[in-house]
Parts: sequence; C-alpha cells; structure tokens
Amino acid sequence: MVKIVVLSGVPSSFREALRNINVGTVVPTSKVFPDGEQYLRIEGVGCERCIVVASLYPNQDSKLVELYLALDALKGLGVPSIDLAILYQAYGRQDKRFLKGEPVSASVLYQLLSRYCDKIVVVDSHSKQALEYLGKNVVNIVPHGYMVKKLGLKVDFVLAPDKGAIERARCLANELGVGFDNLEKFRDRVTGEISVKEKQLDVKGLRVAIVDDIVSTGGTLAKAVEQLYRAGASKVIAIITHALLVGKAVEKLDSVGIDALVTANTIERNVKPRWLTEVDISELVLNQLLR
Amino acid sequence: MVKIVVLSGVPSSFREALRNINVGTVVPTSKVFPDGEQYLRIEGVGCERCIVVASLYPNQDSKLVELYLALDALKGLGVPSIDLAILYQAYGRQDKRFLKGEPVSASVLYQLLSRYCDKIVVVDSHSKQALEYLGKNVVNIVPHGYMVKKLGLKVDFVLAPDKGAIERARCLANELGVGFDNLEKFRDRVTGEISVKEKQLDVKGLRVAIVDDIVSTGGTLAKAVEQLYRAGASKVIAIITHALLVGKAVEKLDSVGIDALVTANTIERNVKPRWLTEVDISELVLNQLLR
Repeated sequence: MVKIVVLSGVPSSFREALRNINVGTVVPTSKVFPDGEQYLRIEGVGCERCIVVASLYPNQDSKLVELYLALDALKGLGVPSIDLAILYQAYGRQDKRFLKGEPVSASVLYQLLSRYCDKIVVVDSHSKQALEYLGKNVVNIVPHGYMVKKLGLKVDFVLAPDKGAIERARCLANELGVGFDNLEKFRDRVTGEISVKEKQLDVKGLRVAIVDDIVSTGGTLAKAVEQLYRAGASKVIAIITHALLVGKAVEKLDSVGIDALVTANTIERNVKPRWLTEVDISELVLNQLLR
Repeated sequence: MVKIVVLSGVPSSFREALRNINVGTVVPTSKVFPDGEQYLRIEGVGCERCIVVASLYPNQDSKLVELYLALDALKGLGVPSIDLAILYQAYGRQDKRFLKGEPVSASVLYQLLSRYCDKIVVVDSHSKQALEYLGKNVVNIVPHGYMVKKLGLKVDFVLAPDKGAIERARCLANELGVGFDNLEKFRDRVTGEISVKEKQLDVKGLRVAIVDDIVSTGGTLAKAVEQLYRAGASKVIAIITHALLVGKAVEKLDSVGIDALVTANTIERNVKPRWLTEVDISELVLNQLLR
C-alpha cells in the first residue's frame, strides 16, 4: 500500500492528475492561527509507505515550513518509509556563495530532508549543487524532451540562454537530433542587473527552442528571443520547466513577440498568457516513485 | 571582540538599546527577489565571535528562513563561535502531538540550530519541551520579576490564567513574597474554542498580576480579568512577556477594563493601546551573552 500526501503548493492540474490514478491521496488538514503560525494535521494515513508531493512556491518560506511540518507529522505516525517529490525546489539558485557573507540557501534550507526521506525526486533542480544538497538518494527529472514530444513540437535548433542551461540544451538537442548553442549572461551580483552578450547565431529560417529551468521576471529569456529573431529564426519557442512569470514577465515576453512558452505543471500560476502551454508531467514524476 | 548581528524581526526599541551599548552591531543586507525568495548578506564581520539576535515574528516562516540563512552566512565567514538570542520563539506552542497526525513544530523547525550555535538564549520559551528542542546549551529568561521591579509595580497576588503558566506565577509570587493561584483553561483541540473554569479566588481588594508568556488574541486573558474583577480585585495588571495582540485582542481587553498590560520588547507590535507598557529587557538578554 502507498499513500500520496499532497501539500498546499501542488498546482491544481497536478492534483487532478493524481485523482485520475488508482492510488490513495491525502490532503492534510491545515489552518493559519490568528498570529500567522501554520498548523497541519495528517489524517487517513496508516502504517503504509507515503509519498509526499510538494511544490515550494509560492510563498517559498511558508511552503518550506509546511513541508517540514508534514514530514514530522508522518514520522510521528510511524510510517515505514517516506518518499518526496519536489515539483519546484525554492532557493535552488542561491546554490553557492557568490559573494563573501552570503549563505548557501539551497544547502541550509534542505539539509534536514534526508533525515526524513528515503528517496527524493526533484523536477529540474537548478544545478548539480542544488541537487546534491538534498541528499544521496535523489533523482532529478528534466522534462524538456517529454514536453516537446507530448505536444509534437517541431524544433530545428536548441538554444541555452546562458551557460547554466548548456547541459539542458545539449540533452534536448541530442534527444531531437538537432544542433544547439548557448548565449552568455552576466549578472551584476550587487545590483542584480542582467546583460546578455550579442552572439553570431546560425538559425536563419529555423524553429528554435530556448531551454531553461526557470523563467522568473523574463529578462534573460526576452533578450534571447530578441537575438534569435535578429538572427533570422522563423519561430521561437521557450521550453521552460518552471514558468514563474513574476513582475513584468508577461509584458516583456509579449513585447519581444515570443511565439510560445511551454512549461510543466510544477507550480500554480496566476497569469495565463495566450502563448503559454502547460504540460502535465505527473506521469514522469510518479513513474519514478510508484514503480 | 564580539559582533552583534541584528535580524529583521528585532523590534526597534531593542535595536535602539543595542546602539547604546559599546558593542559593534551589524545589520545584514537583505532583499526579496521578485519571485518572493529572501536574500541576505552579512558584511562587516571578521574572524570574531558573533551573537545573532532574532525575533521570529512576524512573519514567523520568513523569520525562521532568515535565521537559517544568517547562521549559514556566518558559518561561511568562518567565525569562531555563534551565540543566538531568540527574543520570540515562534511555533513554541505546538510543543507536542496533541492529536494523532500532528507535527511537533517546536521540534522540527529548530532541530538544526544546535549545528550552528554554541549557546542559545531564549526569552520565555513556551514550555520546558519547546526549550529542550533548541539543544543543550540553552538559557531561558523569564522577565516578569525584572519588569515588575523596573516599573516599581505594587502587586499583592499573582494569578496564572491556566495550568501552563503556574511555574511562571510561582516564580513571580516568590520573588515578590505574595501568594498565587491558577485558573484552568480548556481548549477544544479541533475547534480551537477556549473556556476557563470559574474558580473561587481570594483576591478581594487586592492588586493582582496575571502572568503568562504570550497573549495572542486575548481570549484567555480577558476571561481571567473578568473573573478577578468578579472576585473583588481592586486592580488587574497583566504581566505578559510577548504581547502579540492580534485579531480582536485590544477590543476584548478594553471591554473587560484591564488596568494595565506590561510586556517586554521582544516583538514589533502594530497596536499600542493606552494601557500597554513595554519594558526594555535588552540588558537581561545581553547580560547572558556578553559576560
């Protein structure tokens, strides 16, 4: 027997997919006290293997606390094993000390998980480091190829918008049997200002997929889209696992004329621009945990 | 040499007290990214002993995350020792599993601290258990007697509004050389509803101090004030370490005609009713850490 414990950040389309499979799911009872503290209680779980499904967004801090409370509740129930699926790993981008005096947020906030969990599955962790902080028995799922195939997209070339995404671009390009390249992004670590180096790209007449793990305010992605159109690309599709689309992201991507943004159902989004397509990846995640 | 690192929850009056002592203080650089993640960086700390001062309210979850980020940043700076003062310990009231399937929030959220801190000083932890979860080298400061003396209050009798506060009442009563008693509170663990058992109290004509660690929405305290007036108390003063005063607390305490509420500067409060007196307890806290 196995029970899936669904935490509050899991997006509605992922919940719906869970309802359609033949496994028991449990949603903890939860409330917020008048002073702002969270309370949760997990009922309906016996002495059976549990899979906790969490998405740590938004609000990242509350979702982290909720995850720890849920894991401790399960431990208290004496369940024989706990596996964890993290659909969106918050704080993954602060994966090292870029400047003296900074924390490694992706390390300190996750170091407890391995005390509670037997196996952890993460959807597209930001980096090798961010993934390693989760412990030893960890599986990283990169869903770009799955999403492209599920939608039947035609892609002639793959572009990584910065060096951090090169591995993602290489993987997708290999899977599709096409070429790939990357741009270079520079971030001023103090002001946060981003610039992308202009590069000669051989994409004339091609349908190009920009591949990355996260689009937040859309600055880097918009700059990559612009460069691709200037270089003569016929179509620009972004394949981004976690489309946060905060701040002025939608306006920025609208203004550069993005053709499509394909993303996974790892977070709940408020904005649904017409060029956004969300792909259900629950099958990919559950295959790692239910087999 | 010692540096005091002041986190964002520390109330302004406590900060001011810190400025007036001859010790270097450091406030981390902090910001919130557009997607809601916190960033902090600690500058101006060399290879010197550090004391982190934190108050985990409000918002409790963000303040907990901030604390862990700050501790990891200091660790990364290689400081030789870290002491920690927790002015307000969030989640201290969920200090055991009251119902099956609940977490022990006060345990799971604090279990990492002892990896980072040499000594931890807490202001009036909710319970012996909540205190123990912080590790071995922990000091609990109960400031009721200090506050009563600092204000020169006249108290003839001490009352604990529930069983959880009996030790606090006993200590203050002993310190003042007066008698004490306690009421009994019942909380419906599912609905959260509170009731206080009516009790014969020998307080006719007395100035009574109600002692507790936290007043949140004020329900329990208001019921205790009412009973005391009914029993003929001439004056009712509440001596409460952490006066959160959320929800309708101010209206409730106004309506039962509380004479005074004396509290410590452990949290930043939005409300300042005329009957509230805040006592600076920074000296009590720092004496434990600077000597």
